[in-house]
Amino acid sequence: MAAEAVSSSLPLRTAKQDEFHPLAPLSAAEIGDAVSLIKSQWPAKTDIHFKLVTLEEPAKAQTVPYLEAEFHGYNLPKIDRRAMVNYYLRKTSKFHEAVVNLTQQSIQYNVRLGPSVHAPADGEEIIAVEHIALADEGVKAEIAKLQLPEGTKIVVDPWIYGSDGVDDDARMFQTFLYIQDPENQGEADSNHYALPLAISPVVSSETMKVIRIDHLPTGKDNTIKEPQPWKSRPGNEYIPEAHKLRTDLKPLNVVQPEGASFAVTQQGTSNVVEWQKWSFRVGFNQREGMVLYDVRYDGRNLFYRLSLSDMNIPYADPRHPFHKKAAFDLGDVGAGVMANDLKLGCDCLGTIHYLSGTLADEKGDPMEMPNVVCVHEQDAGIGWKHTNYRTGRAALVRNRELVLQSIITVANYEYILAFMFNQAGEVIYEVRATGILSTQPIDDGVEVPWGTVVHPGVLATHHQHIFSLRVDPMIDGYHNRLVYDEALPMPRSDFNPHGVGYYTEETVVETSGGYDVDFSKNRTFKIQNADVRNPVNGKPVAYKIHAPAFQMMLADPESFHHKRAEFADHNIYAVKHRDGELYAGGRYTNQSRGGTGVRSWADRKENIVDEDLVVFVQFGINHIPRIEDFPVMPCEIIKVSMKPVNFFDKNPAIDVPPSTQEFNRSTLHTEAHNQGSTVGEVKAGGEVCCPAPNSKL
Amino acid sequence: MAAEAVSSSLPLRTAKQDEFHPLAPLSAAEIGDAVSLIKSQWPAKTDIHFKLVTLEEPAKAQTVPYLEAEFHGYNLPKIDRRAMVNYYLRKTSKFHEAVVNLTQQSIQYNVRLGPSVHAPADGEEIIAVEHIALADEGVKAEIAKLQLPEGTKIVVDPWIYGSDGVDDDARMFQTFLYIQDPENQGEADSNHYALPLAISPVVSSETMKVIRIDHLPTGKDNTIKEPQPWKSRPGNEYIPEAHKLRTDLKPLNVVQPEGASFAVTQQGTSNVVEWQKWSFRVGFNQREGMVLYDVRYDGRNLFYRLSLSDMNIPYADPRHPFHKKAAFDLGDVGAGVMANDLKLGCDCLGTIHYLSGTLADEKGDPMEMPNVVCVHEQDAGIGWKHTNYRTGRAALVRNRELVLQSIITVANYEYILAFMFNQAGEVIYEVRATGILSTQPIDDGVEVPWGTVVHPGVLATHHQHIFSLRVDPMIDGYHNRLVYDEALPMPRSDFNPHGVGYYTEETVVETSGGYDVDFSKNRTFKIQNADVRNPVNGKPVAYKIHAPAFQMMLADPESFHHKRAEFADHNIYAVKHRDGELYAGGRYTNQSRGGTGVRSWADRKENIVDEDLVVFVQFGINHIPRIEDFPVMPCEIIKVSMKPVNFFDKNPAIDVPPSTQEFNRSTLHTEAHNQGSTVGEVKAGGEVCCPAPNSKL
Repeated sequence: MAAEAVSSSLPLRTAKQDEFHPLAPLSAAEIGDAVSLIKSQWPAKTDIHFKLVTLEEPAKAQTVPYLEAEFHGYNLPKIDRRAMVNYYLRKTSKFHEAVVNLTQQSIQYNVRLGPSVHAPADGEEIIAVEHIALADEGVKAEIAKLQLPEGTKIVVDPWIYGSDGVDDDARMFQTFLYIQDPENQGEADSNHYALPLAISPVVSSETMKVIRIDHLPTGKDNTIKEPQPWKSRPGNEYIPEAHKLRTDLKPLNVVQPEGASFAVTQQGTSNVVEWQKWSFRVGFNQREGMVLYDVRYDGRNLFYRLSLSDMNIPYADPRHPFHKKAAFDLGDVGAGVMANDLKLGCDCLGTIHYLSGTLADEKGDPMEMPNVVCVHEQDAGIGWKHTNYRTGRAALVRNRELVLQSIITVANYEYILAFMFNQAGEVIYEVRATGILSTQPIDDGVEVPWGTVVHPGVLATHHQHIFSLRVDPMIDGYHNRLVYDEALPMPRSDFNPHGVGYYTEETVVETSGGYDVDFSKNRTFKIQNADVRNPVNGKPVAYKIHAPAFQMMLADPESFHHKRAEFADHNIYAVKHRDGELYAGGRYTNQSRGGTGVRSWADRKENIVDEDLVVFVQFGINHIPRIEDFPVMPCEIIKVSMKPVNFFDKNPAIDVPPSTQEFNRSTLHTEAHNQGSTVGEVKAGGEVCCPAPNSKL
Repeated sequence: MAAEAVSSSLPLRTAKQDEFHPLAPLSAAEIGDAVSLIKSQWPAKTDIHFKLVTLEEPAKAQTVPYLEAEFHGYNLPKIDRRAMVNYYLRKTSKFHEAVVNLTQQSIQYNVRLGPSVHAPADGEEIIAVEHIALADEGVKAEIAKLQLPEGTKIVVDPWIYGSDGVDDDARMFQTFLYIQDPENQGEADSNHYALPLAISPVVSSETMKVIRIDHLPTGKDNTIKEPQPWKSRPGNEYIPEAHKLRTDLKPLNVVQPEGASFAVTQQGTSNVVEWQKWSFRVGFNQREGMVLYDVRYDGRNLFYRLSLSDMNIPYADPRHPFHKKAAFDLGDVGAGVMANDLKLGCDCLGTIHYLSGTLADEKGDPMEMPNVVCVHEQDAGIGWKHTNYRTGRAALVRNRELVLQSIITVANYEYILAFMFNQAGEVIYEVRATGILSTQPIDDGVEVPWGTVVHPGVLATHHQHIFSLRVDPMIDGYHNRLVYDEALPMPRSDFNPHGVGYYTEETVVETSGGYDVDFSKNRTFKIQNADVRNPVNGKPVAYKIHAPAFQMMLADPESFHHKRAEFADHNIYAVKHRDGELYAGGRYTNQSRGGTGVRSWADRKENIVDEDLVVFVQFGINHIPRIEDFPVMPCEIIKVSMKPVNFFDKNPAIDVPPSTQEFNRSTLHTEAHNQGSTVGEVKAGGEVCCPAPNSKL
């Protein structure tokens, strides 16, 4: 087969402009096309409520040859473009899943899903539910009992209903009510989470009516009280106008006088990023937000696909209706659709490149999502250093990172999600939790062991944040294995007479399943390619996973929380790859029952040695609220990193140019510390920092 | 008592210029004074080898009233200045400890220490030992057997001998030999760690002569071989000239156009730092390097003293002489004396303020240590964010950090040590390990389970890095307690019918001892002041400790490693404060036996509830070397953080001014992404980011 020369300014990566890359998100035109195809399946005036119109990724067996051909500059195989569509017949519970083949203009399948399979919420729906709750006569009557001051604004936060097995087959919303501070009327951004009410209407998704009004317990037990006349209490605003701001913070700018070191090439609806030997493709979709594909370093295969698979936030209050609170912020809503528009200079610092996305709204019309991912570099301190004490010469490089960041707002909470890369071949996934605690009312003077009073009358219940990062590896090839190393003490013996020896032992993970770290043994998981050996020491090339220790889901194994968040009980899940198995909590998480997520896939007990395997890495925190988390919480930062182990033949950052004053242009704080002639001396070329003094061996 | 008005540009913090602050390091004059006083105790021509001339901190019972008077602007009590001096009568093993009262010009005590108490190494001594080993006829004869190419440079790395109970009472050095690449002669910074030799002379400290020549085992067992003729093997250089450097990294500058936001006020030999409501005093001494005193936020007491207490690096090879390798880099050498001179623009980025120190050399002369600490700010991403989805308005602040950084070189290794502070009242201590692995020779084709071959013929043995941070708290006052919270599942019951409830339970640590984290229970340690209650929720004010999980010392409890590194077996040690108990591994670690460190203090089993307690926080990594760690390792980063819990009445960073483009001055990567009128629009005053769109409730 003659290789077709593919020429471009990017020697290795091209896709013809009139063809879509198989992993590129759907274009606006394709969305329209998919929607038309679906509509054509129904009578002309059928009102269809679209929940999802997204790329159906091709089978990996097709995509891998495409990526390899693309990398090597060969002819590109043709792969049909397909869309996954979820929709309701509006105002019914008839929920459908369809896959349409856009290339063939045909319906691959179009099925109605079972009675207790429900769609995620969408933005229009949320707003409609808010209005329905506020307009309901029964709700109004309850609110009237509060005798609120005139003009008080009531705010409705609709929540995914959750699951408890008690009359919960139908799709519903549990709404939580708040007021905005009556003393601060006119402030549209007044923080309603400071003033929660105990009235909680339940809205049926099918009828779009209030079907029940729950009342929240506000004491130490399940006692419900009639709504009482409102007693004035203070607000707690987060907006800057409400505070006497600090005046002594001076600007800090990140300036890149020659521009950024990365190159972003837009190819239709996806983007190729190249930076410091890294290259990868970025996609964006409704559920996962940003997804990275075909991640390589110096042309070597590393990761086929990287994405946040889901997160689960179970709450600790056992009482109705709080016992149902366990949000899947991706499956129940979507990290793509909830992504913030990152305005220049506010969310990201330095020389920024924005990526935008196109999703579909509930009518099936394309919906532009501008600036949902920002791409920029940051300096992360020293990368490596050594000073030869005999000569005084220091060799030093700085650690430059590439950041792809997206921020999602899920009602009260924010999550800042970032993929980061550095010059030492390391990949970091970082989550920052911020935004506002979910609050509920509590009687004055009451304390409970499942939450913290963060404001008079306001309880923030304990909750866990458990994230699942989906890692589909291709470490130097497509057959990998998962192993773990442990460091174990040697027993005392003639060989170890002083009791100090220790050794490492590697165990191969043979079967799909859930596995845990164990810091007492330094148990470290690595994804290896047993067929590719390090040229220096003969060890199999690998990437190790650094995941922080965390307390896994506390809800017991019989609970719905546990059954549904299938990833939340182990640090690592490893499974054999199957197309479509992307979401660790299952495809449809809203009011789910479990059984369709990673634990279930792992239970197939398949061989995963030297296979196409996928690893899910769990990480998280148990959030025990404190006063300092209110009215808005300082970021809590959690990271997972993946680092090369015997993959390279030396430190991959050894060829980073040395850190010099000419390059970095730092300044002295005061003239009194002027170091003489080395300050401000700009020399052409790469003058090495800290020239050696004359003393030499 | 009339308060004496103390006026200054710093309203709260002054010390008269002609008096030393009681916690300020010794000045050059004071060093000279202490040395004279000691010399006067001996016959005039006695050659004294000084090992330490440092501040002897006053009793805390004296210093606390001083600090409180200083803070409130009252009369300052007078406190005598004292120096701790360690010295040998040169070329003997007569090691002394003395405390001299500089104010009274008297000797408080001057004692000879026991026969197996030894001083740390010093720079002159290290160089002398190198020369002695190279000049020894026996060593030369062994080297001759290698038949090295003419002009080959031999390098001697002297190591602290270590302890094993085998004829190890006398002070000795174990030296490890290397050569520099014969193919790269003339390069003074050629990396000798790539070419280790199996000849290991032992030098007596007292006679300064080689007393024994060990040979290193180079196979899988204890077999020692005669030195064989050298077979040529490749080098492995880290200096930039040896590499084809990347050419595509563009500069990234941190520019602070209005200067830095911190103020550093030098007062004699110490410095007061003020930044974003933080204030503290910085000292610097031979052993600990930088020490922070009197750390306050918004005037409230937080930490009396913060310092790195010691670190221990035990190695995994059980064979002689490696079984003795367990370095205490502070106690055996000193983080102050090993501190790098941080050249402008290389080690630290932005607007930098340098702090310098004065130590004493082995003659007792003052030794200036310029630029050993750099002070600067850094942007650490978003501090907090919330977007009100109903209005679209985002409130957002960035996370600015203050960094005090010092870098120490301990022969092959570097440690980058930093205290960091942020605007949310958090303190972070960060260690980055970098530099060069300690290497030993290994025969070709051999693998061992206690190390990794990182270069042909070069083994890097596994080793642990265990650090101990000494935290002397004064959370809102001087009587604190240590507690821990655990998050526990509620059993199923009528109250918890769905099995989802969980609660937190607090346990008071009553007695001094060693304690551990337990992530399965989310066990979190907090330092509390039970007498000061949060005004919102009545909880005691506290700071919690976030220490990462790590594998504690693997050497068994009967080993010298375990006995000596008294901190290395628990995540937390808590003890009642006693003056002078600063070093968790004991005061004299060189060839120590144990029994004088934190485990021993804790064994006093004292009450530490509502007491003056001190907490030692351990953290670390088990370093299993990989190819990527050679010839110099990318930084491995470990952090401990301390965060307020119910200490404030809301998020302490709520009053940070909002992040705006005017302030941050980010730039767009390409013109194609111009966002229209919001780009480049500079408005006077604090225009809030992302002005709300018109849609409001």
